[in-house]
Amino acid sequence: MTASFQWDYLRSEVDRRLRMFVDRQRPLVGAPELAPLMTTAEDFLAGGKRLRPAFCYWGWRGAGGEDDPAIFTAAASLELLQASALIHDDVMDASDLRRGRPSAHRRFQALHERSGWRGSSTQFGEGAAVLLGSLLLVWSSEMWRTSGLPAEALAAAEPVHDIMRTELMCGQYLDLLEQAHFENTFDSALRVALHKSGKYSVEQPLRLGLVLAARGQEPWIDRLCVEYGQKVGIAFQLRDDVLGVFGDPAQTGKPAGDDLREGKRTMLIARTLSEASERQAEDVRRLLGDPALDTDGVERLRRIIEDTGALAASEEMIKRYHDDALTSLERAPITAEARAALEELAAAATSRQS
Amino acid sequence: MTASFQWDYLRSEVDRRLRMFVDRQRPLVGAPELAPLMTTAEDFLAGGKRLRPAFCYWGWRGAGGEDDPAIFTAAASLELLQASALIHDDVMDASDLRRGRPSAHRRFQALHERSGWRGSSTQFGEGAAVLLGSLLLVWSSEMWRTSGLPAEALAAAEPVHDIMRTELMCGQYLDLLEQAHFENTFDSALRVALHKSGKYSVEQPLRLGLVLAARGQEPWIDRLCVEYGQKVGIAFQLRDDVLGVFGDPAQTGKPAGDDLREGKRTMLIARTLSEASERQAEDVRRLLGDPALDTDGVERLRRIIEDTGALAASEEMIKRYHDDALTSLERAPITAEARAALEELAAAATSRQS
Repeated sequence: MTASFQWDYLRSEVDRRLRMFVDRQRPLVGAPELAPLMTTAEDFLAGGKRLRPAFCYWGWRGAGGEDDPAIFTAAASLELLQASALIHDDVMDASDLRRGRPSAHRRFQALHERSGWRGSSTQFGEGAAVLLGSLLLVWSSEMWRTSGLPAEALAAAEPVHDIMRTELMCGQYLDLLEQAHFENTFDSALRVALHKSGKYSVEQPLRLGLVLAARGQEPWIDRLCVEYGQKVGIAFQLRDDVLGVFGDPAQTGKPAGDDLREGKRTMLIARTLSEASERQAEDVRRLLGDPALDTDGVERLRRIIEDTGALAASEEMIKRYHDDALTSLERAPITAEARAALEELAAAATSRQS
Repeated sequence: MTASFQWDYLRSEVDRRLRMFVDRQRPLVGAPELAPLMTTAEDFLAGGKRLRPAFCYWGWRGAGGEDDPAIFTAAASLELLQASALIHDDVMDASDLRRGRPSAHRRFQALHERSGWRGSSTQFGEGAAVLLGSLLLVWSSEMWRTSGLPAEALAAAEPVHDIMRTELMCGQYLDLLEQAHFENTFDSALRVALHKSGKYSVEQPLRLGLVLAARGQEPWIDRLCVEYGQKVGIAFQLRDDVLGVFGDPAQTGKPAGDDLREGKRTMLIARTLSEASERQAEDVRRLLGDPALDTDGVERLRRIIEDTGALAASEEMIKRYHDDALTSLERAPITAEARAALEELAAAATSRQS
């Protein structure tokens, strides 16, 4: 069985287990008035690359875990956490779109408008999305805990699970600070990238799987999580930065140059600013974060990001981090099958188009 | 040892355990930039009546649980859940104050303004408060699970814990619908009150304690939770409705008539509308929810609520529910000490001034 085949298998198992979990909640959330919560949750859970469950699953297999159905349920619970984070994120950023479709708060707002209800539709939309995000956060811990994995495996991984979730909230707060207050040096942007997405997207899902199977933390696990996990995680975020500026809207589901319009302070932008001429820096300051930024403005910013060498430097860093990660993978005492899968996952996380 | 003495003991134990838990998080949340998250969390956790932990603790004692330090930790975790709900609630309602002090999102907004940071201070404040609420939600499940209670006790109560949190989010969504869309009959307001606060404030905390000690659900537990718990829970919410209109600002920490200015559709308002004359109903529709409502307007609405008999009917219903709850308490096979404490708690929940 090749890793590529297992990738499809993993995705369909994750999908199926998410549907099963949501179905289990229907007796509690089955009232017709609550239907918009359920359908929005289902829509959000149907999308996604399933990268986090994949890192968790291959951590488990890598440390000798059997192909137990319960690991798919535990791994799939990370998608509930991710859906929660995306829904809250879109409220915080006032984003209209997610994967090419309206964000959760915009959907609830549209429901309010369509129905001609009382009061502010914006406030209703945001309130409902905050609640739905919290509901999915609660569900993710329930799904994790009731996965059917042995109690001693869960007990060993519980501290990692707790730390990951605290880190996620703190990392997102650091991101708010980066946007509002930090100096947007490359180092500050790198720190935010590590805490907001690097750890939570790759390192900790992988660690969860490894610790579940090994029934505890071990030095080689920590080394692999730091050397492979953090490197792939940061490269993953660098790819995100590049896609946010140069990505194809048909693939990313976001308008062209959306991060530029939002004024996101990323590693890519930090490097651009540190390398920019006086004139280029002035243009960046003027155009970045302009909500009315048009195609010409996007083009001008893209050109500066290319001309300063920031784009090439980011691509080079992605490649270097990716290659370093593979080197550390070679040294890790994991199964050959897991090594091949984690190689493929590193490529998928860093070369993706969406 | 009288129940009154134990009430102070319980409060100080809950306070202490919350401080210990937050201290345990410092290694993760200790960076100076994260300090505003920590201080706001600590402020929110320092206040509160500790009713939910008290119901949980006395459920535990009532079903024969020992005075184990671990039960205080488990019970105290409900305050983290409550702090999370309040912080998110204030964002959703755009409330400025909580217990007489700025709400969490207003504090973060003020931090942004005071520091002269970039971008919208409102958006920063709301984003930070959403994250802090999610962090406390995550912490509440961590504190619950790591309380030190025996694994079989936790396993027995876990389904109740899961259901309670799903019910809380769904109940709050029902409340949004009640404000935006339902017909605000007494019955619809009663249903929201039960789901939003009745179950979560009294019934489920009590059930958690009982099931933890009994190591499972039993018919008498369910009967007590429904007959005592739901009745006290609804009376608790009715008291809330009355305090929201007639409460003393020095005690409630909210401006006089705050619920009227917010236009909250409560059981008290539903009953007022159903009993109002044409002229009174017109005044209610005109004044209720007016953000600029002045003292005269508040006075006019209060008079209508009194003149229609809605206030007296609410007080009567509180008394009847309270008395019914005590009757069902007499029949329950719990310890005499717990019975006395739960009597006292029923009075505290329904006769409070804040």
